[in-house]
Amino acid sequence: MRAKILTLTTDFGADGPYVAALKGVVLGLAPEARIVDISHAVTPQNIREGAFVLSSVLDAFLTGTVHLAVVDPGVGTERRLIAVAAGGHWFLAPDNGLIPAVIGDQVPDEIHVLSNPSLQRVPVSSTFHGRDILAPAAAHLLLDRDPNELGPRTSNLVPCESRVPRREGATWRGEVVFRDRFGNLITNVAVKQLAEVPPESWVVEIAGRRIVGLARTYGDWPTGTLLALPGSSGWVEITEVNGDAARRLAAAPGTPVQFRPRRSTVPLL
Amino acid sequence: MRAKILTLTTDFGADGPYVAALKGVVLGLAPEARIVDISHAVTPQNIREGAFVLSSVLDAFLTGTVHLAVVDPGVGTERRLIAVAAGGHWFLAPDNGLIPAVIGDQVPDEIHVLSNPSLQRVPVSSTFHGRDILAPAAAHLLLDRDPNELGPRTSNLVPCESRVPRREGATWRGEVVFRDRFGNLITNVAVKQLAEVPPESWVVEIAGRRIVGLARTYGDWPTGTLLALPGSSGWVEITEVNGDAARRLAAAPGTPVQFRPRRSTVPLL
Amino acid sequence: MRAKILTLTTDFGADGPYVAALKGVVLGLAPEARIVDISHAVTPQNIREGAFVLSSVLDAFLTGTVHLAVVDPGVGTERRLIAVAAGGHWFLAPDNGLIPAVIGDQVPDEIHVLSNPSLQRVPVSSTFHGRDILAPAAAHLLLDRDPNELGPRTSNLVPCESRVPRREGATWRGEVVFRDRFGNLITNVAVKQLAEVPPESWVVEIAGRRIVGLARTYGDWPTGTLLALPGSSGWVEITEVNGDAARRLAAAPGTPVQFRPRRSTVPLL
Repeated sequence: MRAKILTLTTDFGADGPYVAALKGVVLGLAPEARIVDISHAVTPQNIREGAFVLSSVLDAFLTGTVHLAVVDPGVGTERRLIAVAAGGHWFLAPDNGLIPAVIGDQVPDEIHVLSNPSLQRVPVSSTFHGRDILAPAAAHLLLDRDPNELGPRTSNLVPCESRVPRREGATWRGEVVFRDRFGNLITNVAVKQLAEVPPESWVVEIAGRRIVGLARTYGDWPTGTLLALPGSSGWVEITEVNGDAARRLAAAPGTPVQFRPRRSTVPLL
Repeated sequence: MRAKILTLTTDFGADGPYVAALKGVVLGLAPEARIVDISHAVTPQNIREGAFVLSSVLDAFLTGTVHLAVVDPGVGTERRLIAVAAGGHWFLAPDNGLIPAVIGDQVPDEIHVLSNPSLQRVPVSSTFHGRDILAPAAAHLLLDRDPNELGPRTSNLVPCESRVPRREGATWRGEVVFRDRFGNLITNVAVKQLAEVPPESWVVEIAGRRIVGLARTYGDWPTGTLLALPGSSGWVEITEVNGDAARRLAAAPGTPVQFRPRRSTVPLL
Repeated sequence: MRAKILTLTTDFGADGPYVAALKGVVLGLAPEARIVDISHAVTPQNIREGAFVLSSVLDAFLTGTVHLAVVDPGVGTERRLIAVAAGGHWFLAPDNGLIPAVIGDQVPDEIHVLSNPSLQRVPVSSTFHGRDILAPAAAHLLLDRDPNELGPRTSNLVPCESRVPRREGATWRGEVVFRDRFGNLITNVAVKQLAEVPPESWVVEIAGRRIVGLARTYGDWPTGTLLALPGSSGWVEITEVNGDAARRLAAAPGTPVQFRPRRSTVPLL
């Protein structure tokens, strides 16, 4: 059997033992699984950030991959745990909007509530459902077992609360959703949403500044230039050539950003 | 052959190259080994913390797992390096109390001193015995080879210096041993030690405060409530609902905590 | 087929999703690959540090290992991406001096420019060549495919700008290149460069202080002693017994260090 891939996205931190507990449970049941850490540095209980991080790498993984995401502010309450098949991938997470934020417009092929006690660790702790319910369910899928054993099908999911960019006339208003280690600001505006106007005709405003957009690559501009770029995962990014745009602009997740077509021949500042 | 699992617990930090050196040596000898990082963020030279982190995930791993732990304030001195079989697991570490702190009351099945030079890297460095002696010994065990080749048996271990909770009458006095990323404070008092009194009858005192204990789950309490909870690894945890108990209480590893049965009907503050 | 090993050294940070994207692409093409993280905490765009970190663990890996390193200040410019075979290992990186800094005096067996579009992801992004060009090329080598398909051979590499220690008479002048988590300062002076004089006869000066050198091991000295030691990877390290030499000396990468034979019998301070 070809080893199946499991990805992990959590807010557990890489420095504690919780991530290892997930892996131990999975490998105890599915010893051939290949486990890839996406990130364990999601801001604690930040569902939107977890969804962004996972969605940004999704197309690097083959269909058939199982994605386990644990950002779970509701652990200990009655929120459900679910498994969702969509676009050829499986997603397991608390039913708190994370999976809808990852799959976006895709219609799920099937959704199961993880309620089969025979697939859960005994006893199930009240605070670590990732280890006791989600990890064994992921192993079940990695072993190509019948998804219907996970629990009954459902058709509804708690929707995600992520703010989507709004369009006003020809203008797109979005926001920064992630700051990477280099100070690049990834926005929630998709490159394809800006495709109707030639890239060089967009005016980009963020943190009170107008910046160059959309450049094709930052190799073409001098050090220190602030640019909007088509990012490597399909979202528009704000970057500073050889610099740290987040620090330069004092911008962070939540900072508004606006894209509008240039109307005049006034040169960009 | 089924791939065997090796776990790694060190104070090396995840940002330097030392962890990778361990893995390279192991995979060079046992290419099928599955390696799981427990944590590399143990406070440098903190044997008790390393032992706690490893012990807290032990039950997520099947018997037959090999656990390598390197927290080694004595590297370069004459301290021994050992391999200990206990409870169906193998543990390799410097003989500095770490393994006794992990296995607790369990009696080791066998203990070997890692003194066979033919299983060591040549030359053995004076400062990196994890790579040069422990890692090859772990690979030897992962390959199911004869443990007696590791070196002679011994029956004594350097004891652990971990403080255990003390009982005074009906009161348990313990301390915080770990602060996780969410600000939860894990204590060295086992849930089972408190089992003789109904959970809701315990009065918990920490950092000059009396808090609610033992709650079954924090989903039942309003945001900001400080609780004592049965933790997911068997120890009592101090937590704040949707908050950071460590910051709220200014508590950290070493902070005393006390559990006593309620004697009167005075309501909890 | 025996699973081949791929190591990863980047400045991506372990907390974002970029590393996982590399892994997803590699495992999609070479599902049996064993991936080992060397470090993702290289200071952003610091080519010399990336090279140091990789070179310091090289001898822990068997020949046949593939090493992918992405520290790429020139992404988006016309810099080349290359694969280099040297000393039985493969190295893939931008052609920016990183690989020459790793292999040092070794003459490469072959060098290929990664220009075969049929081995690249479609479309190639302008900002993430690690995922789109380097990772698929690494997978190609992990699968033991013909290196000539990567692209044409070349014989020149961009040289590394790393400063090498200078010799003045009997004195070696070098510098600190890495500070590890324990505060040890690893220098660019090789232990073998100091072999002509007995270890205890070297006088070491750093940050305005004369320190003991070369000690064989720090187990022999009292707590707080500053020592120069032969490090576990072949470079001389400055360490403080049971302390943090970097903090004590206010030293960091770039701090000069000097080794000269003792000429008199004046005792070390």
